[in-house]
Amino acid sequence: MKVYFDHMANTPVDPRVVDFMLPHLKETYGNPLNLHDFGTKTLQAIDEARQKVADLIGANPQEIIFTSCGSESNNFALKGIAKAYEKKGRHIITSAIEHFSIHYPLKELEKEGYKITYLPVDKYGLIDPEAVLAAITPETTLVTLTHASNEIGTIEPIKEIVARVKGQGVIVHVDAVQTAGTIPINVAELGVDALTLSANQFYGPTGIAALYLRKGVRILPFILGGTQEDGKRAGTNNIPGIVGMGEAARLAKSEMSERANKLISLRDKLLKNLPEKIGNFFITGHPTQRLPGHASGCARFVEGESMSMFLNMEGIAVSTGSACVSKALKASHVLLAIGVNPEEVHGSLVFSLGKDNTEQEVDYVLEKLPPIVARLREMSPLGR
Amino acid sequence: MKVYFDHMANTPVDPRVVDFMLPHLKETYGNPLNLHDFGTKTLQAIDEARQKVADLIGANPQEIIFTSCGSESNNFALKGIAKAYEKKGRHIITSAIEHFSIHYPLKELEKEGYKITYLPVDKYGLIDPEAVLAAITPETTLVTLTHASNEIGTIEPIKEIVARVKGQGVIVHVDAVQTAGTIPINVAELGVDALTLSANQFYGPTGIAALYLRKGVRILPFILGGTQEDGKRAGTNNIPGIVGMGEAARLAKSEMSERANKLISLRDKLLKNLPEKIGNFFITGHPTQRLPGHASGCARFVEGESMSMFLNMEGIAVSTGSACVSKALKASHVLLAIGVNPEEVHGSLVFSLGKDNTEQEVDYVLEKLPPIVARLREMSPLGR
Repeated sequence: MKVYFDHMANTPVDPRVVDFMLPHLKETYGNPLNLHDFGTKTLQAIDEARQKVADLIGANPQEIIFTSCGSESNNFALKGIAKAYEKKGRHIITSAIEHFSIHYPLKELEKEGYKITYLPVDKYGLIDPEAVLAAITPETTLVTLTHASNEIGTIEPIKEIVARVKGQGVIVHVDAVQTAGTIPINVAELGVDALTLSANQFYGPTGIAALYLRKGVRILPFILGGTQEDGKRAGTNNIPGIVGMGEAARLAKSEMSERANKLISLRDKLLKNLPEKIGNFFITGHPTQRLPGHASGCARFVEGESMSMFLNMEGIAVSTGSACVSKALKASHVLLAIGVNPEEVHGSLVFSLGKDNTEQEVDYVLEKLPPIVARLREMSPLGR
Repeated sequence: MKVYFDHMANTPVDPRVVDFMLPHLKETYGNPLNLHDFGTKTLQAIDEARQKVADLIGANPQEIIFTSCGSESNNFALKGIAKAYEKKGRHIITSAIEHFSIHYPLKELEKEGYKITYLPVDKYGLIDPEAVLAAITPETTLVTLTHASNEIGTIEPIKEIVARVKGQGVIVHVDAVQTAGTIPINVAELGVDALTLSANQFYGPTGIAALYLRKGVRILPFILGGTQEDGKRAGTNNIPGIVGMGEAARLAKSEMSERANKLISLRDKLLKNLPEKIGNFFITGHPTQRLPGHASGCARFVEGESMSMFLNMEGIAVSTGSACVSKALKASHVLLAIGVNPEEVHGSLVFSLGKDNTEQEVDYVLEKLPPIVARLREMSPLGR
């Protein structure tokens, strides 16, 4: 049996999305900036995809900028917005549990003289709206927060945060890579100014993502050159990626509640059974206010890397902490931020389920994992 | 009849490349940074593609960094190398005929205090190796030059330039978007330190490109976040794009001389017949030292935009100047640099042929264009 429980890292492309991409991959190639029918055909395909992506989050198509990945959208948003508004001030507010594609660009801005405030989170990973408001100074231009961390799955109270900071004259950017296409998002209701989303988190292809930028919000281009994406992002358009992202967005919107209901029931089975069956195992993140397919936790006296390797021998793919740094074996800054002990951090596991996973697969994992943990604890110097 | 003569803007994806991509688009989705078989499968596919791209230009696979487009590679190379070496100096040498994805990042560096030297070119668009050497100062860290401009097709004497500047302690970057996969390139023979190449110029998909960076050359990352691409370029790998680029590179290498021989004969037919059949038409770029499928020129007393629209009504797609700015209707800086009069610049046309074009298509264009030009000249206030 092969069980893929690593959807936070990447989702498989929906076969319907592949079918939709295929004719474009073969036959849509004219440059949309050029004045001929081949280009017009491409422009129409891109416009249609842009509309579908906009519809997923309640935006206008003119507010969608296609990029190559969530990391690019995050780098672009932070540097582009910070610099567009730097005459007003050079203070940015973020949280302690952001993805590295947020933290590293911020560290670069810090070197240039920007001041960054890293807000703490509570034991569930929740950011306090009052703390965001309290951190704002006259120099603050930008607040950038995750909608949900891929490591702990907790969904942040973005709407409440935006309501609190309204009227303070700050731009709010949200990293919604893990939520867009998975839970309902309406940018107008949330009240955010910029939002990162990535196709590879909702069964679209890798290599394509987007940045929502509310009309009127200024940004400096990140990739300079041609006039693509309204002059905001140069580079020949990724035609198959864009049309694939559009179709994946359309499917995600129409099937969202159905997918989520199934995933919540599978997730809750894991959240309930993992501590019971493994022992000395605690759940990380919020018990209910979390991503539908996301279950995470730490097993004491054992290493996540070893568990994931033994699980792999049983055909099971899970992740230990953030997908982007697994090989680095660093202690997760997200788990440390929610108060997990440094020695317990290394026993972390993330089970991220997708729309095609089954209860049978959950049962298989719940059967295979406990004896692996028991054996590792016997073998390990950390074991008791 | 539909005739696509706009391959400088974008090439169609080779059906064999599509076939190669398809199983990966469907079944290769594990994150290669994660320790499970799904990730290992992806890693193997990427490694194989990286080898094929390296083979195309005589590089080592460790020297290939995948990016999302030629413009990203150019922005990345310029900013990343300039900043990595800025303790040595802040002077960069380039030419007057570079793509906007070179000129605009350089203008941004100029605002930050860098000094940029824009070398002139001769009437064919050739850069003088002696002039490059003469422009070097103790502050110079980087020389960035096009291998061939998409507007005039002239192939620059990169090998001679590198030989001239050898020992001067400068990094040489070449924008080979229009040449890689089309004419033979060996980075060791050329002696360059960094080189931009893009899959969509050799029948691979859009949305994927690469930067060759010679081992030992330093660069600062452009997109910060995860540890992908040896820590030099964050973001979930574009799996279908990367495998598609690899296969396109393999085909380009094995079929290169066959493709070029055919294209040269079609190109030369255009270069000979366009001035004869149209009258008051002159070829731009070098008569022989030019891209195999590239013919360009200017018709006096008529506008390129009008010609291309009328050609489009006959099913013929051509470009007027650079693909990335056609809609901007700006006078081409490349044509001005080779000495074309400002009033003649607007009559420019670029015919860029691809491996599947035929002599019949060339004949069709040579039949349709002259009466279009004649009619436009009659109608136009510029006409005589």
